[in-house]
Amino acid sequence: MVFSTFGRHVIADFYGVSEEILNDYHFLRKSLYEAAKACGATVVGEQFNQFDPQGVTGVLVLAESHLSIHTYPEHGFCAIDCYTCGTEINPELAYRHLITLFKPKRTFERCLVRGAGEIIDLKEKELKVVNS
Amino acid sequence: MVFSTFGRHVIADFYGVSEEILNDYHFLRKSLYEAAKACGATVVGEQFNQFDPQGVTGVLVLAESHLSIHTYPEHGFCAIDCYTCGTEINPELAYRHLITLFKPKRTFERCLVRGAGEIIDLKEKELKVVNS
Repeated sequence: MVFSTFGRHVIADFYGVSEEILNDYHFLRKSLYEAAKACGATVVGEQFNQFDPQGVTGVLVLAESHLSIHTYPEHGFCAIDCYTCGTEINPELAYRHLITLFKPKRTFERCLVRGAGEIIDLKEKELKVVNS
Repeated sequence: MVFSTFGRHVIADFYGVSEEILNDYHFLRKSLYEAAKACGATVVGEQFNQFDPQGVTGVLVLAESHLSIHTYPEHGFCAIDCYTCGTEINPELAYRHLITLFKPKRTFERCLVRGAGEIIDLKEKELKVVNS
């Protein structure tokens, strides 16, 4: 079987998230699994670390690439990446699910095209075309 | 201790890499550890998966964020991410080290600023200023 190298990579920074959430290893782990499920991705491995005195890093390895989070509870900040190869899985669904769980006051995000030459920004309109 | 949320995220797609390298789990794992060392990052966890019939995903969780690879040996393609927080560790050094090991025929790369508001592209010139 030969897979396409095409992928979409959502890069998102969340601000104004509760410090409690961002230091809750179990909640964060559960949230990442839920987000993977929300976009239909298949989890094949994981690595989560609780840092001292605060902060969590979590990575889910997906059959379709990866979903990761790095949290800075003291700043109410976390950095999210969701990269999925192929056109069937939409990483934006994982990202949107995490917004509903973490309720950030502000977000910044980019969606990049991977594996298709120049790494360009996928525009909202193009994303809809890809998913239609 | 309070850490800055500022980080740099190198996103790189490599084309024209040997199929043998891209399917060599042990070589890839060793290469990622070497790349982390090349930029002075501290590895705190890992998750590597060999896919059937081909392809490897590897993630190193760093004290400073993460370093990941997804390979598509049949296309001579791999996708690299190296995200490091703070200003002391330069993720470009990891990326450049992987170029010397994998010898891609062509690369595309971006370097984004994370954790500092709008997710913007860090220009080569700005990168040098940050590192000087």
